[in-house]
Amino acid sequence: MARMASPIRPTDPEARDLARRLLDEATFGALGVLHPETGVPNVSRIAISRTVDGTPMTLISDLAPHTGALRADPRASLLLGEPEDKGDPLVHPRMTIACKAAFLEDKAVHRDHYLAQQPKAALYFDFADFHLVRFTILGASLNGGFGRAYELSPDDIL
Amino acid sequence: MARMASPIRPTDPEARDLARRLLDEATFGALGVLHPETGVPNVSRIAISRTVDGTPMTLISDLAPHTGALRADPRASLLLGEPEDKGDPLVHPRMTIACKAAFLEDKAVHRDHYLAQQPKAALYFDFADFHLVRFTILGASLNGGFGRAYELSPDDIL
Repeated sequence: MARMASPIRPTDPEARDLARRLLDEATFGALGVLHPETGVPNVSRIAISRTVDGTPMTLISDLAPHTGALRADPRASLLLGEPEDKGDPLVHPRMTIACKAAFLEDKAVHRDHYLAQQPKAALYFDFADFHLVRFTILGASLNGGFGRAYELSPDDIL
Repeated sequence: MARMASPIRPTDPEARDLARRLLDEATFGALGVLHPETGVPNVSRIAISRTVDGTPMTLISDLAPHTGALRADPRASLLLGEPEDKGDPLVHPRMTIACKAAFLEDKAVHRDHYLAQQPKAALYFDFADFHLVRFTILGASLNGGFGRAYELSPDDIL
């Protein structure tokens, strides 16, 4: 059985709204990084919050392999939009963000803002091995459910 | 504040049981692949089932970028173990599987076995652009919750 050549639809206000909602509501996501030596992809779960301008941000430890990987190569991918029930997970909207990681030097400045979004992180926010990382959005693939795909720019999302 | 040097614990029966449970119960996961031209990581959601020997398997379409990426470079990463409620997602157990993808030639042979695990896929299983892919496990990082990390071999999981 043959099907349509491309599932990408023209970006419309509904797609932008959905992308912004997925980013606003994310408390965690799947982070893809490159292994520093082998270059193979590695996916791990991280907490997600946002900087004051809405850019995704996380708090990660030097004890986790993704932290060293991002120091060696900041090119990363973030999958946001997690199913929370037993429905078909491929129908649930999700978004893959192509991004570039930057370690923030001024962790203390962001403390209150971060902990307002991730209150449980107060237990370890001040540990010396934990670092705030901002993910500058380069673009995103939005999947609103089976066959509803969009390619978004940073301006579509922020 | 300084902390322990490594969070990796010795693999024990509980860790193996947890890893097997995460694989057995997964219906979807986050797949990490490499972009065929740029080499950047890309994470997307895929359905997860298992071959008869328990190896993770998925059904993916040529219309999705991850399919072409896996044809160009089979090195992949699978994050399994998704939180289903509003609890702290970083406490929920999850596992990152380092794996190598192989496209299965005999899709029809696996039809009944796949659809028993993913009945909703009957709607599109027979589309010509959909392919079964097996992920041979090379190793895995198991995170049983904050600070409970293990490095597992394929024999620990299958």
